[in-house]
Amino acid sequence: MSEGSPLWAGRLAGGLDPRILAFSQSLGVDRRLLAHDVRASQAHVRMLGRQGIIDSADAEAIADALEQVTLDEGAADEDVHSLIERQLVARLGETGRRVHAGRSRNDQVAAAFRLWCRDAARDLTGAVAGLQETLVARARADGDLILPGYTHLQRAQPVPLGHHLAAHCVALDRDVVRLRAAHAAADVSPLGAGALAGSSLPIDPDGVARELGFATRFANSIDAVADRDFALDLSYACTVGAVHLSRIAEELVLWTSSEFGFAELDDRVAQGSSMMPQKKNPQVAEHVRGRAAVAIGRLTSLLAVLKGLPLAYNSDLQEDKELVFAQVDGFAGSLGALCLVFEGMRFDGARMAAAADDGMTVATDVAEVLVRDGLPFREAHEQVAARIAAGERFAAPTAAEAIAARNAPGMPGAFRDQLDVIERRIADARAFASS
Amino acid sequence: MSEGSPLWAGRLAGGLDPRILAFSQSLGVDRRLLAHDVRASQAHVRMLGRQGIIDSADAEAIADALEQVTLDEGAADEDVHSLIERQLVARLGETGRRVHAGRSRNDQVAAAFRLWCRDAARDLTGAVAGLQETLVARARADGDLILPGYTHLQRAQPVPLGHHLAAHCVALDRDVVRLRAAHAAADVSPLGAGALAGSSLPIDPDGVARELGFATRFANSIDAVADRDFALDLSYACTVGAVHLSRIAEELVLWTSSEFGFAELDDRVAQGSSMMPQKKNPQVAEHVRGRAAVAIGRLTSLLAVLKGLPLAYNSDLQEDKELVFAQVDGFAGSLGALCLVFEGMRFDGARMAAAADDGMTVATDVAEVLVRDGLPFREAHEQVAARIAAGERFAAPTAAEAIAARNAPGMPGAFRDQLDVIERRIADARAFASS
Amino acid sequence: MSEGSPLWAGRLAGGLDPRILAFSQSLGVDRRLLAHDVRASQAHVRMLGRQGIIDSADAEAIADALEQVTLDEGAADEDVHSLIERQLVARLGETGRRVHAGRSRNDQVAAAFRLWCRDAARDLTGAVAGLQETLVARARADGDLILPGYTHLQRAQPVPLGHHLAAHCVALDRDVVRLRAAHAAADVSPLGAGALAGSSLPIDPDGVARELGFATRFANSIDAVADRDFALDLSYACTVGAVHLSRIAEELVLWTSSEFGFAELDDRVAQGSSMMPQKKNPQVAEHVRGRAAVAIGRLTSLLAVLKGLPLAYNSDLQEDKELVFAQVDGFAGSLGALCLVFEGMRFDGARMAAAADDGMTVATDVAEVLVRDGLPFREAHEQVAARIAAGERFAAPTAAEAIAARNAPGMPGAFRDQLDVIERRIADARAFASS
Amino acid sequence: MSEGSPLWAGRLAGGLDPRILAFSQSLGVDRRLLAHDVRASQAHVRMLGRQGIIDSADAEAIADALEQVTLDEGAADEDVHSLIERQLVARLGETGRRVHAGRSRNDQVAAAFRLWCRDAARDLTGAVAGLQETLVARARADGDLILPGYTHLQRAQPVPLGHHLAAHCVALDRDVVRLRAAHAAADVSPLGAGALAGSSLPIDPDGVARELGFATRFANSIDAVADRDFALDLSYACTVGAVHLSRIAEELVLWTSSEFGFAELDDRVAQGSSMMPQKKNPQVAEHVRGRAAVAIGRLTSLLAVLKGLPLAYNSDLQEDKELVFAQVDGFAGSLGALCLVFEGMRFDGARMAAAADDGMTVATDVAEVLVRDGLPFREAHEQVAARIAAGERFAAPTAAEAIAARNAPGMPGAFRDQLDVIERRIADARAFASS
Repeated sequence: MSEGSPLWAGRLAGGLDPRILAFSQSLGVDRRLLAHDVRASQAHVRMLGRQGIIDSADAEAIADALEQVTLDEGAADEDVHSLIERQLVARLGETGRRVHAGRSRNDQVAAAFRLWCRDAARDLTGAVAGLQETLVARARADGDLILPGYTHLQRAQPVPLGHHLAAHCVALDRDVVRLRAAHAAADVSPLGAGALAGSSLPIDPDGVARELGFATRFANSIDAVADRDFALDLSYACTVGAVHLSRIAEELVLWTSSEFGFAELDDRVAQGSSMMPQKKNPQVAEHVRGRAAVAIGRLTSLLAVLKGLPLAYNSDLQEDKELVFAQVDGFAGSLGALCLVFEGMRFDGARMAAAADDGMTVATDVAEVLVRDGLPFREAHEQVAARIAAGERFAAPTAAEAIAARNAPGMPGAFRDQLDVIERRIADARAFASS
Repeated sequence: MSEGSPLWAGRLAGGLDPRILAFSQSLGVDRRLLAHDVRASQAHVRMLGRQGIIDSADAEAIADALEQVTLDEGAADEDVHSLIERQLVARLGETGRRVHAGRSRNDQVAAAFRLWCRDAARDLTGAVAGLQETLVARARADGDLILPGYTHLQRAQPVPLGHHLAAHCVALDRDVVRLRAAHAAADVSPLGAGALAGSSLPIDPDGVARELGFATRFANSIDAVADRDFALDLSYACTVGAVHLSRIAEELVLWTSSEFGFAELDDRVAQGSSMMPQKKNPQVAEHVRGRAAVAIGRLTSLLAVLKGLPLAYNSDLQEDKELVFAQVDGFAGSLGALCLVFEGMRFDGARMAAAADDGMTVATDVAEVLVRDGLPFREAHEQVAARIAAGERFAAPTAAEAIAARNAPGMPGAFRDQLDVIERRIADARAFASS
Repeated sequence: MSEGSPLWAGRLAGGLDPRILAFSQSLGVDRRLLAHDVRASQAHVRMLGRQGIIDSADAEAIADALEQVTLDEGAADEDVHSLIERQLVARLGETGRRVHAGRSRNDQVAAAFRLWCRDAARDLTGAVAGLQETLVARARADGDLILPGYTHLQRAQPVPLGHHLAAHCVALDRDVVRLRAAHAAADVSPLGAGALAGSSLPIDPDGVARELGFATRFANSIDAVADRDFALDLSYACTVGAVHLSRIAEELVLWTSSEFGFAELDDRVAQGSSMMPQKKNPQVAEHVRGRAAVAIGRLTSLLAVLKGLPLAYNSDLQEDKELVFAQVDGFAGSLGALCLVFEGMRFDGARMAAAADDGMTVATDVAEVLVRDGLPFREAHEQVAARIAAGERFAAPTAAEAIAARNAPGMPGAFRDQLDVIERRIADARAFASS
Repeated sequence: MSEGSPLWAGRLAGGLDPRILAFSQSLGVDRRLLAHDVRASQAHVRMLGRQGIIDSADAEAIADALEQVTLDEGAADEDVHSLIERQLVARLGETGRRVHAGRSRNDQVAAAFRLWCRDAARDLTGAVAGLQETLVARARADGDLILPGYTHLQRAQPVPLGHHLAAHCVALDRDVVRLRAAHAAADVSPLGAGALAGSSLPIDPDGVARELGFATRFANSIDAVADRDFALDLSYACTVGAVHLSRIAEELVLWTSSEFGFAELDDRVAQGSSMMPQKKNPQVAEHVRGRAAVAIGRLTSLLAVLKGLPLAYNSDLQEDKELVFAQVDGFAGSLGALCLVFEGMRFDGARMAAAADDGMTVATDVAEVLVRDGLPFREAHEQVAARIAAGERFAAPTAAEAIAARNAPGMPGAFRDQLDVIERRIADARAFASS
């Protein structure tokens, strides 16, 4: 195979039109799969050697040479897989041309991508845990500050800051669940499925799967190369996670506004204005919010790619990697940035408390006192509502008392117990992330 | 509370502008939650009685009256929850006005919706299993017919029909995994979270959760009313499932074309043309494909609803039910329709076999013979490619021989073993669906 | 044609499986096209009569009978088009069976749908103008109130309320442009294109187009039945419009919060809480915001439906109507509801003014004074920034003075001139809407 | 301003955390705006000079220095705008620090981006015309070949290839309409709007707009920096265009399949398989199809970014450029690649003709003969349908005769007249593209 000739020279006359190569080429994207393809290719050739499909010495030579593959610039390779085979041939000659026995790019791509997704799901789990840890730390330190809980962005009832931060931690915990599901979805070896029908050579897919640490081997060779559910699951987990972060971000924007004034950003994470000297902008939160929107579109894209595709592999699937890489990068970036923001944030307990104790947020408690006295709740609600409409405000209970009266599990007054539970969940996530 | 007055009369002067009521009203959609809200409300009032928040007799009276609630037409209720309370008051007077102690519509809606989603996830699992059963039955009956497996819609390698149908079954099996995850996500009781901060009354959220068969109770009261991950997870499971079905549908459209001619639809599931007398259209498959596209948009919608929403409840969330109901109906409808299509379909084994045995699809096998003789695969590939480019076709191996040579697990020649595995998975799914 | 038999009986044995009919049926959705199909069918049969394809008397009889068609319940029709032909046959016997000469449901559906979209685009233009009128009226009445303009939700510079409301009017004006483009896109008659290849009968597509007031007739018969760009364009116009409204809505939510306190909703458009007696929620704004999210998904759906469809008509397209109807209803509903909200809203000029005159929002003006004195802007910016960082606040210029210094076209101080321009644009839109 | 310090140093203590800079930085994306920002900045400083806000000599020095700005690597600039100002300061010292008087990054970014979008819309118009030209050339050369027109992927009626290709040209013509609308949307200068409230300096927005060739100047300064409709319109035009191309692509995949066999790709645009020596894959068409799916998601993303954003500028908007750049690149790439594919494609007239003349596709014509004889169309349809169901095939009319009978405007037999019309439209598009 000459420099830059595709893996399928021979059937088609002349070379690919360079404009078409540029159009079809995925190397700029799938170069990130290099390490994963190397691992998978090593497992593959060792299996070829074990099974006697190629010489053991050749197998070892190829496995060693794979270690040396680099992303050399300027090559006209279709993709990272072509690049790898080209370098093997350049280094090993005829021996290098033996690597592709019993496999196709279809299962090769799927294998490298699955390994990548498995790593990404694991790493993201750690990153989610990292934000949870930051939030828990702030909740432990400042959690007794009282602010209004909001519904419809109207002050509803007083809650401790710790309870509010715990709410976000609980949502993030569900992201861990989804990431672990995405990990499990990726944890299936497609190697041996070939183009779609396996191989007539005596390959050993189970052995390859074992060597690569996959939980299992494909159930059906057609599905193995046609399936991108694992990519969807990871993209979905990132999207929902990003949406969770966008809700946190929206609150950061609100809290750091002059009107709320509940928190102030550390200067090292805030942005000024090129024109207005007084500005201190929560641009991190805005980016987090905007990137959640972008994440939604990327999930849409991948779903739309897959819609209506007949089995098995089609080149439409080549879009999958750029979409998933960007999802993972985006989610990881937002998680990390929010950690920095929360670490340096100063809460203004006085502003919060003033908002929470406005004489209105305890109206429900007042009504519930009437219920204890025997009034039907709807009657109590109407009475209290009428008093408020008439201008009355309530001095009792205080926000703190209202919170103290809600100390059952999951309730505002019991947020420290929630933090304990969350920390155990974080420990689980950390254990998984470092597994 | 008078006829049609909202649950929050008292605070706001005059009634709601009827045009605003029409704009805000969700009764046309959430009427489907009636039975689920009734169950949840019964559990709630029994708890109120047990805890002494209201009289036991009142609790029983309300629980009984809940049984009688009907979707009476013409009411100006904001939603099904208002309708229920209105009927309770109409029936029980002051006693009916006691039902809402210790709860808010925020947790009430979430509870009914979660119960609905839990049921839907379970029922859809059964519907997926139903299609798998149909496919397995066809695979057992006609699975030895040989057709070309395709990549890039080009004939690639011969496979038995049973292997191809098994590929779809394996994909559907992952839908079961997602549906069960969606079930688990919904299986958390939000009751007791109130508006966002629980209640100062001595409510018993754990008891209510137990009575309703929820696996657990909310971890954090703010999250309990702000969270719609369970709706997302169900919507996502339906979307990916619909995309899977769209891939089946695309193949049905291809297979029943004159050009492929692999299958013919039963007249009872095909559509003619109003103008062209000769037409027999695979409209079911097209609807399945089109509705997968719609499903993608609905998931997008729900994600976009949630993006950037501050905690806790906001009325934007009211969009959730229509979006999820439509996802579930759409997926269930497509599953059922495809069962009917596959049940009556006639396969044309001769057309399939002719396509599979075209002297080209076994080219990989020919190259692999050369590999067994010691040629590097890339060399063998080039030689065979050149022979094909020169017009040569291959008489051996036959398609059947090529398949027989691939009989390891997951391979085309071993599809009947795959069917056994799938049937065990179906049995699991059926057990869950009837649990 | 017997009761409920499809338009294509004869080719296919037996009837359609009732479950498949239920699955494929679109009558529940396309019943809204009845009046439009009647108009188009009348033009069609009159043309058939003129061209001598059917008797003139028959043509008139059919045209008259079309006037009588009603949405009778209980029919097992596939769609509204089948319903119409069924009733014609029931009323006119053999004569009714002549209506479909020279046409197909493919061009028939497209014609009725295009007429509907044309009307909808025109009506929505009027509805947009309606909201602009409301905003202009408020801007004329209360426009001199001063509030802070925001960037990053941080107070940036003072602006008059009239300038802020004018900003939304200018955005809405672009919605009118898009709606008119959508109208033009729909304004092409597909009648005569038949199934995809026209007809061998001597039909007169131009005459039909003229009678129906279409601007022109299809350029290509295949495109005429395959094209849904007009539906996309209308859906897109609604989506961007809905997004604009969501930005207004977000501000309403902010302005009516306790923290901003810039505005108070009229009681007749606000919602209370079922639990919390003190609440007054801006649920209309939240619905507007949420429904913008849903609109995004619906546009996504229609695009995904069309992606990858080969020419010409495919049943996937049947999804188009439900998606477009919902877009139009949603946008119209939000426009109307926001009118009511703005009409009754009370602005709190004192709260706004206090926020605008906080000694910081004029920092840019202070820097610009230094620029007039010869300082490089970057230097001036840094000096002012340093003074603010050191705690200095600015008494001069006042917010009013800062605004007065910006009275060039498009600037805050010139908002009344903008209102004049907007009113001329509104007049144009109104003229179009009533054309 | 020191090396790498942001444009807003002074207000905020210390530097930006480098991790936050990396997170917020847009230079990797907006570097593509360099030339456009340079042009806009030159117009801006010349205006500053004309208006006496800075010295004329300074203005000229800055304008000249702007010409020298390069994308120097390694800088820690937030964005391309910071990079430009940094280089001006490095080159001109204090004079460089004068450039930003009377403007903000908000209007600066919008201006450069609008100039870019205007160019892109114009260039894409030319690219669309290019594909139309290729299709027209093929239609003129091979247009008399007859193939079946399809509905539901079932053979419907015979059409000339020229008519089919013309259908795609007509769809592409609508893309030109949308691109020109996007051009018009971008053709509004935002310069002078500043951060959102213009400037107290005596700037001349109209002069700047004129110098930059903008059709007009912003109507409202808040809207000028908050609006991204122009980006949406361009993204939408690209998306619909990509969807059109995906429909062409789907047909290419079908036509080049063995089963259809209507066309063969030139070897220089086709891809082989790494495993299967016989394969010749239409990967270009698949990429075009897949990238249409991606385009849908990108439009979704931008809409979701904008949903619910309060006025005026928010950093969420920073996502706009990457999303739009990718849309434009993607659409342009697919247009160019399809030109190459069509230029080299070989049509197989015999395979097409055999499919078109199958004795069934003229069934409508046979029924229409009966209509001419006085039969109601529905009766004629049923008779012909029954004959087909009974196995009858039709020798007359031939496909060619059926086409010849349809020679009115827009009909299959008149496709060459359509090509004339299309060519006039192409000439218009070309004139616009080179304007």
